[in-house]
Amino acid sequence: MRLPKGFLLSGINCGIKKDKKDLGLICCSSLAKAVGLFTTNANPCYSVLLSKKHINNPIKAVLTNSGNANCCFGKNGLKDTELVVARTAKLLGVKKENILFASTGIIGKQLPVETIVRGLPQLVAHLGHTCDDFASSIMTTDTFRKISFASCTGKTEESVILGFAKGAGMIAPNMATMLSFVMTDAAIPAAYFKKIAKEAVEESFNAVTVDGCMSTNDTIFFLSSSQIPLNGKKGLEEFSRQLKHVCLDLAKMLVRDGEGASKFVEIRVKGARTKKEARQAGMFIANSNLFKCAVYGADPNWGRIVAALGHAGIPVKEDTVIHLSDLHQKEIIVTVDLKRGNCALTVYTSDLTPEYIKINAEYS
Amino acid sequence: MRLPKGFLLSGINCGIKKDKKDLGLICCSSLAKAVGLFTTNANPCYSVLLSKKHINNPIKAVLTNSGNANCCFGKNGLKDTELVVARTAKLLGVKKENILFASTGIIGKQLPVETIVRGLPQLVAHLGHTCDDFASSIMTTDTFRKISFASCTGKTEESVILGFAKGAGMIAPNMATMLSFVMTDAAIPAAYFKKIAKEAVEESFNAVTVDGCMSTNDTIFFLSSSQIPLNGKKGLEEFSRQLKHVCLDLAKMLVRDGEGASKFVEIRVKGARTKKEARQAGMFIANSNLFKCAVYGADPNWGRIVAALGHAGIPVKEDTVIHLSDLHQKEIIVTVDLKRGNCALTVYTSDLTPEYIKINAEYS
Repeated sequence: MRLPKGFLLSGINCGIKKDKKDLGLICCSSLAKAVGLFTTNANPCYSVLLSKKHINNPIKAVLTNSGNANCCFGKNGLKDTELVVARTAKLLGVKKENILFASTGIIGKQLPVETIVRGLPQLVAHLGHTCDDFASSIMTTDTFRKISFASCTGKTEESVILGFAKGAGMIAPNMATMLSFVMTDAAIPAAYFKKIAKEAVEESFNAVTVDGCMSTNDTIFFLSSSQIPLNGKKGLEEFSRQLKHVCLDLAKMLVRDGEGASKFVEIRVKGARTKKEARQAGMFIANSNLFKCAVYGADPNWGRIVAALGHAGIPVKEDTVIHLSDLHQKEIIVTVDLKRGNCALTVYTSDLTPEYIKINAEYS
Repeated sequence: MRLPKGFLLSGINCGIKKDKKDLGLICCSSLAKAVGLFTTNANPCYSVLLSKKHINNPIKAVLTNSGNANCCFGKNGLKDTELVVARTAKLLGVKKENILFASTGIIGKQLPVETIVRGLPQLVAHLGHTCDDFASSIMTTDTFRKISFASCTGKTEESVILGFAKGAGMIAPNMATMLSFVMTDAAIPAAYFKKIAKEAVEESFNAVTVDGCMSTNDTIFFLSSSQIPLNGKKGLEEFSRQLKHVCLDLAKMLVRDGEGASKFVEIRVKGARTKKEARQAGMFIANSNLFKCAVYGADPNWGRIVAALGHAGIPVKEDTVIHLSDLHQKEIIVTVDLKRGNCALTVYTSDLTPEYIKINAEYS
């Protein structure tokens, strides 16, 4: 595993949290192409609001913080956010329009601007080729760092894709309520990059759910330093496959590390009339607390799947197939064949456990 | 408290469950006017399918069972259901079209037709003026019987309203996933009865949620024996108020007895643009697992309310008011003033506790 060419990473503790890393930076040696996908929550955090404005610019760096959602603390939210971003830009010798920002943590507390600004020089000084500090700096209740890596044949040399993600609660579509950063040194035409990034997210981050709650902060950035040319159409197709692999890999890690999760559940829906119906079916099952409790208790109560499908407006007929693998295992496969059409989608979720409640009863 | 004139009740154990009451009967001396509201789940149980066909007929009796949802067990479901209902009708000297049926319990197990039919004579013989046996016979995971009573001034004598309900999981709109039976001896014009019954349900059973899961069996029947004339328009208005009171009383009991619930939460939404928006806001908050865990843990994490409102598509502005009463109390009031319009609605829910998971991990 190596970093994609043209990127450096950093992660430090600046004091938002007591002693854990809380400030991260992805920095490009030149300016990168970026694609961004954001929460559809009507109350997005200030970092999302700012990044939406900047996303179509050439990007020098992505600043991240954990421990504070930078959301909903009154009039100065956007001003504070712009100040932090402007100071980052100045340190890196670019305009603030070349910086993206992503935040995660508790909602409703003022962003500690001074603390962050004081930490920026150290953050920049710390830039290097290791992944772990950055991966740690975006964690909240995550129990492990989420990093995925793939390589693609390039024209002259191998190109790589490197992705990071953080969960672990509030995981639901759209945009799976998480932060994720995926970098590559492959040179991809801008329009194609946008298209495959969206496709990759649809079947990965948008196909996972932990608790059905939608965050105010969901953000995924794709960045390309365009340093390694690919091998024509064939090269692009390979890149597309690998990008999807990295996104699905990260999305599955989110579910495996879902708050309190003790089991990983793969819900394979087929025979749906449309892709949308397949997603609807999978998500209604995945978000049913009753189903999730049954999985936790290894109780093969498939009636709850029938109820969830009905809640989604999907009739179960005599030839509908509902199959559950052994619920005592850690990895569970639910197969649902609706026998209504030819569309399929797989959705990933976890069980609902007393540990989830413990974590979320004592969060703030 | 007395039974409305013209009604008798019964409840016995017929053997669906080991030793708890599992078969109930509401019987009218003449034929009653009925109003029925049913689950909107696309996979309704056979009892719902049958009752939907009968609901506009004059009604002699309502048969109920607990311990089996009478849902999704193959080809003979509707035939079995019709057989049980036909045998009940025969015992009572009416046609099967004059009988309603409501079931609750586990989905996907064949209705024990023989067992029920064998119990019917005893059930009919047991008809009388006490409430408790019937109230017990409809319970599943309920921890207490849910009975509500009100009286109205009649023309010559007092009329009464008597209601029963059972919860306690799968409580969500529409139709709050429960069974409820509300009887009266007041004479109400059929169209008016239908109208106020629907209104009463909108602000009671359709305004509560325990876990956001929609059952296949939700049913509420309103029955009137029409024995006591009311005092014109004024009498009808009083009746309407009292009917709403009984429904809200029962709906609140459902929430108080929500599976594993340790706290009762009243979410008062005002300042919404429409009634629908107010309901949407209240329900997204009430169904947020993160919010419910925060209530359980007495963690005043109002950011989760902001996130839930955003998930519902409702922007929080600087003048939006979100207020939480002391979360250490057993009864919690959340006030949300959206400052967008003049519509209000109150929604009721409970917290999410480890006990909910325990109950639902070991149900079947």
